Amino acid sequence: MKALVYYGPRDVRVTQVPDARIEDPTDVLVKITTANICGSDLHMYEGRTNVEKGKVLGHENLGQVIEVARAVTRVKVGDIVCLPFNISCGFCKNCERGFTGFCLTLNPGVAGAAYGYAGMGPFPGGQAEYLRVPYGDFNCLILPEDAQEREAEYVMLADIFPTGYESTELAGVQPGESVVGYGAGPVGLMAAYSAYIKGASKVMVVDRLPDRLGLAEAIGAIPIDDSKASPVEQILELTEGEGADRGCECVGYQAHDAEGNEQPNLTMNHLIKSVRPTGGIGVIGVFVPEDPKSTDKLEQSGQIAFDLGLFFSKGLRMGSGQANVKRYNRQLCNLIHEGKARPSFLVSHQLPLEEAPEAYQHFDARERGWTKVLLKPAA
Amino acid sequence: MKALVYYGPRDVRVTQVPDARIEDPTDVLVKITTANICGSDLHMYEGRTNVEKGKVLGHENLGQVIEVARAVTRVKVGDIVCLPFNISCGFCKNCERGFTGFCLTLNPGVAGAAYGYAGMGPFPGGQAEYLRVPYGDFNCLILPEDAQEREAEYVMLADIFPTGYESTELAGVQPGESVVGYGAGPVGLMAAYSAYIKGASKVMVVDRLPDRLGLAEAIGAIPIDDSKASPVEQILELTEGEGADRGCECVGYQAHDAEGNEQPNLTMNHLIKSVRPTGGIGVIGVFVPEDPKSTDKLEQSGQIAFDLGLFFSKGLRMGSGQANVKRYNRQLCNLIHEGKARPSFLVSHQLPLEEAPEAYQHFDARERGWTKVLLKPAA
Amino acid sequence: MKALVYYGPRDVRVTQVPDARIEDPTDVLVKITTANICGSDLHMYEGRTNVEKGKVLGHENLGQVIEVARAVTRVKVGDIVCLPFNISCGFCKNCERGFTGFCLTLNPGVAGAAYGYAGMGPFPGGQAEYLRVPYGDFNCLILPEDAQEREAEYVMLADIFPTGYESTELAGVQPGESVVGYGAGPVGLMAAYSAYIKGASKVMVVDRLPDRLGLAEAIGAIPIDDSKASPVEQILELTEGEGADRGCECVGYQAHDAEGNEQPNLTMNHLIKSVRPTGGIGVIGVFVPEDPKSTDKLEQSGQIAFDLGLFFSKGLRMGSGQANVKRYNRQLCNLIHEGKARPSFLVSHQLPLEEAPEAYQHFDARERGWTKVLLKPAA
Amino acid sequence: MKALVYYGPRDVRVTQVPDARIEDPTDVLVKITTANICGSDLHMYEGRTNVEKGKVLGHENLGQVIEVARAVTRVKVGDIVCLPFNISCGFCKNCERGFTGFCLTLNPGVAGAAYGYAGMGPFPGGQAEYLRVPYGDFNCLILPEDAQEREAEYVMLADIFPTGYESTELAGVQPGESVVGYGAGPVGLMAAYSAYIKGASKVMVVDRLPDRLGLAEAIGAIPIDDSKASPVEQILELTEGEGADRGCECVGYQAHDAEGNEQPNLTMNHLIKSVRPTGGIGVIGVFVPEDPKSTDKLEQSGQIAFDLGLFFSKGLRMGSGQANVKRYNRQLCNLIHEGKARPSFLVSHQLPLEEAPEAYQHFDARERGWTKVLLKPAA
Repeated sequence: MKALVYYGPRDVRVTQVPDARIEDPTDVLVKITTANICGSDLHMYEGRTNVEKGKVLGHENLGQVIEVARAVTRVKVGDIVCLPFNISCGFCKNCERGFTGFCLTLNPGVAGAAYGYAGMGPFPGGQAEYLRVPYGDFNCLILPEDAQEREAEYVMLADIFPTGYESTELAGVQPGESVVGYGAGPVGLMAAYSAYIKGASKVMVVDRLPDRLGLAEAIGAIPIDDSKASPVEQILELTEGEGADRGCECVGYQAHDAEGNEQPNLTMNHLIKSVRPTGGIGVIGVFVPEDPKSTDKLEQSGQIAFDLGLFFSKGLRMGSGQANVKRYNRQLCNLIHEGKARPSFLVSHQLPLEEAPEAYQHFDARERGWTKVLLKPAA
Repeated sequence: MKALVYYGPRDVRVTQVPDARIEDPTDVLVKITTANICGSDLHMYEGRTNVEKGKVLGHENLGQVIEVARAVTRVKVGDIVCLPFNISCGFCKNCERGFTGFCLTLNPGVAGAAYGYAGMGPFPGGQAEYLRVPYGDFNCLILPEDAQEREAEYVMLADIFPTGYESTELAGVQPGESVVGYGAGPVGLMAAYSAYIKGASKVMVVDRLPDRLGLAEAIGAIPIDDSKASPVEQILELTEGEGADRGCECVGYQAHDAEGNEQPNLTMNHLIKSVRPTGGIGVIGVFVPEDPKSTDKLEQSGQIAFDLGLFFSKGLRMGSGQANVKRYNRQLCNLIHEGKARPSFLVSHQLPLEEAPEAYQHFDARERGWTKVLLKPAA
Repeated sequence: MKALVYYGPRDVRVTQVPDARIEDPTDVLVKITTANICGSDLHMYEGRTNVEKGKVLGHENLGQVIEVARAVTRVKVGDIVCLPFNISCGFCKNCERGFTGFCLTLNPGVAGAAYGYAGMGPFPGGQAEYLRVPYGDFNCLILPEDAQEREAEYVMLADIFPTGYESTELAGVQPGESVVGYGAGPVGLMAAYSAYIKGASKVMVVDRLPDRLGLAEAIGAIPIDDSKASPVEQILELTEGEGADRGCECVGYQAHDAEGNEQPNLTMNHLIKSVRPTGGIGVIGVFVPEDPKSTDKLEQSGQIAFDLGLFFSKGLRMGSGQANVKRYNRQLCNLIHEGKARPSFLVSHQLPLEEAPEAYQHFDARERGWTKVLLKPAA
Repeated sequence: MKALVYYGPRDVRVTQVPDARIEDPTDVLVKITTANICGSDLHMYEGRTNVEKGKVLGHENLGQVIEVARAVTRVKVGDIVCLPFNISCGFCKNCERGFTGFCLTLNPGVAGAAYGYAGMGPFPGGQAEYLRVPYGDFNCLILPEDAQEREAEYVMLADIFPTGYESTELAGVQPGESVVGYGAGPVGLMAAYSAYIKGASKVMVVDRLPDRLGLAEAIGAIPIDDSKASPVEQILELTEGEGADRGCECVGYQAHDAEGNEQPNLTMNHLIKSVRPTGGIGVIGVFVPEDPKSTDKLEQSGQIAFDLGLFFSKGLRMGSGQANVKRYNRQLCNLIHEGKARPSFLVSHQLPLEEAPEAYQHFDARERGWTKVLLKPAA
């Protein structure tokens, strides 16, 4: 089958690889019809991870079930399914409490597995014609009857919609509260969008790319350009000097200043200053335990210079980590189905799989207008 | 009246000061019968804060009401009351949601007020004969009929029992879970004690002072001496390699290694390594936004080198800040009253107020056997 | 001053009564500019309660502060304030945990006090020129600068918006869930509106009055006419046979069938059938502990024939009671201020106080078009 | 194999039935070493259900794995496992959120399946030599190394310990609160025991059988004999007239007065009177949607005359339903393993399977000393 394969830093190619197939009695085999490129794919693309050459990428996947193994009872051939990016067993100590992003079974020695991802187990990704889904009954979200005509909405359930949503959960967003999000990439936009779904009264989004800030404004958020003035001061001014009730970190360890210099603690410390006492912060931008190629000394060993003194004196709380997609995808699916959520607003491109390498290049360069790319392997 | 007054680093004296008296129509005046020395008093005693000379110290106070102002309706003369260390109005945006440690009214410009404390407003402390209690109806916990004979129990409700308890709340301790606490000072011991009250299955306490570790063991916890071997490895061994479900930071910015060198990030980063993926951390040890006298460069501006990469990849959560005493003191009072909690187990000394200066000296030196000192101004 | 006074069943008059005035040092005196008639005023109007003759009615009040007593520090003369219908002290065992609808101080022997309400203490209502507000610092919600021009929005914060909202809290509504509300009176409409604010994917509202169903539809809910077919069957059909995730009871003990016969258990048992296993029910329609004038024998002693067997086998949960307005009014105020909520959509009439008797008559008759009446005493 | 089979009202026999065996690729086969008789077995025994003749009873099961089907990966032959009484798939809408007592997969048309139970699907019980466990990886709790020597402790994890515990969850018990439980049968005792585990300050238990009240007292609870005086008045007296913070219903639809007359609403309405305003009630005693053999007219159709008026005016909450055993069994297992919980205190008899019929008879008669019977099929 055709698949998008990692060959090395900034070198991905669409090539032939062995077909995905049923291996275990709980597997489901899916013909992929939409597979997105995710911002976190860029960490691998840029060579900032230890992902092995030859890996098929892609963890935002949607398609049609074409085969089920013998122990599968719920999922049927023909179902249109969206796959959470995290692969989980459903029965370990973490999965059984809903922490499916930290499955202890599928990637022994590490809490958490995913398709096509550095350090997340041997599982090929879905930027390919077919995908094997382990523990299919647990991992497949069966979509409603309008799935095929609205793939661009439903595919967002694989990762960025639940991920953005989880940042608002970790931050503790309640109806009527004000929220600031740092980062207006796809996840940051989904965080802002989720905050409004949850009844936030005011959402402020910090970035500096005009098209991203434009999308933030289009969904009703207040765009804050941090290349023009201190984002902290702008937020304090918008909140009568108090700070926002809640904050979402949607940038991660490659945060950089307006001149492009990486400064891994930039957004975290800005958030601590931007959120009011007793507030909460959800960290969904990726931070990594080691980053030997960073120019920042602390960051090389996964540390940042963190304003714990201010954090403590304000009595803040923060939660972090990969989203537990299954915790939210069913409810968010309802919102799409009922027309209450339309996360496809940020899709800029729908391309055949063959054009994936160019798409990676444009997306990685944060080129104007390349906000979110959907690949269509079956096209 | 007599009071313990701060004269400068390591110089506190019992002298005459003007009598505390009713000033506002919501005030209550209390004759102090027990006032403890707190570990956080030592930050001021050692000159590590900007507390003004002349300040009366003491924020763990219990006594008898001798006068109430005209707007006070609930509290009566003769009531035996324990005062939360935080002073709060009851009606600001934070107080009305139970965040009484972050009152916006009583210390304008700062969220939070306290008796006799650096940066917490103009309020004199209670290591004195009398204490003025603002918003008396809101701030006084009226004690049950056995209060006078059990003052050493009930006075713990002013600070360290609710503070230790809050660390378990911030960490999210649930029945059946394992908990590790760093620090076996009074707050750390109360954290361990609270974890068992909440149904923890196993509590591990890290320290290196034998008498403190002995007290931890006496309440059923597993003592871990971090001067003998890596505390992280000991905890991993006790938890089948997983780490504890929850962790409590009860040391703060003056954390130091076994040789006595301050290392402000020591306990936080140990905790991140000691807690299992999806776990939670409660930070109740004090961290300060600036600390110009520290020898650690980051710490001077309130920062620590924080293992955010590992924190994120484990999907951890943490909460922090001064305890909101009123959130818990009524329920913890019930436990004392019913004989289910006896927090006085850590009291080592009950002394007249006049001996306070010597007591500060011994307690500050962490001298063997000086675990908790109660001052008796009325004696 | 002029006030609307209860003279007996279906007999209310606007007459002169002694001026409201400051009585206690924590009082605030408010000149009322808007006071609504509430559906629960009709229980008194119809003579179904033991309210004393001579009582000034009115518990949905908004106005301007014209005097503050000496112990009041937060509220200032000139502030525009909205008053929660429940009067609360802020410091009793219930208030301090946010249960301000169950204050133990202001109405000794009963948990809960209110303005102008049967069994809720000696407090006159606000359908009058002036209102005395006890514990003003705790009870006044100070409105933002656009208060005067948008009184019809903000006055909903006194009762029906938080009350409708609380029914969704008691039911446990989460984003993406389906919700059914029984009753499309003002509180029922606010419940439906609140469910959407909290991110419900689908809201169904049961009633039989066309104008009410029309308003439900206007805010995006699915109207269900229970006079045409079984509401339970309609809801099961709309939820693929499952039932709604959550349900709200917004009718109360005077529930009646389409022929007008009172049947106090009608909506509760319909709800138990309409909600899916593991779901939740919020009961905000009023049920009373005794109702001697009822024709239903059980109801006379406050009982209903309740489907507990089905409730249990579905593993349902339910919460009930008067709303704790202060728990929500600040956040809901933010939503109004930011233009995210416009609860005035249900206002049908704004009338001078003098016309209150006629307004009671029309509203009590559920006349078409009389959905919500605002009285303007200062007009 | 030998098994305890239901032949009709009060007629159960140990006979030969076909061996349990692996049927599906996710099955596990367990050799039963301990299987308890549950109070809810008596509903079937007494003929008050529609259970079919020939059914093997027994839903509190523990044993050793002797075979696993091919799709099972976590559970191994030789593991000692305890089986939650509810059988669940792990992947349906209810299971994935932890509501394993309401599985939608295993008993189509009904939410919830169980071993050997009326209306809970075709699954044979475990009062037999062998038991087939569907979805073995999800349903088996693998016990620690001390399992075999402490079977009488660990077998309580199959039902009554988590069930009693869940009543305290549904009631919302928090540390320091007072709790009243109605019923001191095995589940009621486990509820009281769980309340203390969770840090309750005072637990009161209502019953009238001296041996049961004695066991309640032995675990520190206050025994209340409702045959001697009104239980409500006794509870009000013990709580300074307020009522308990929380209440647990552990009796169910066969509640009866001291003379033995069934009165299905007896305990529920007593609870409503016994719990303080804003309190919570957990209902874990079984109520059934229809009960044609009842002498109570309402009860025949699953209704009770319920004090909703008082419930509402006190602002109470209640949760109900079969326990979701898997939500709690891992944490409760930790407590047993660490010696913090010893639920075997209520075991009165350990008997060979052959003696089961006599044991049913004694237990059904509530004979003095027959508090809990463990059957040992392998003995």
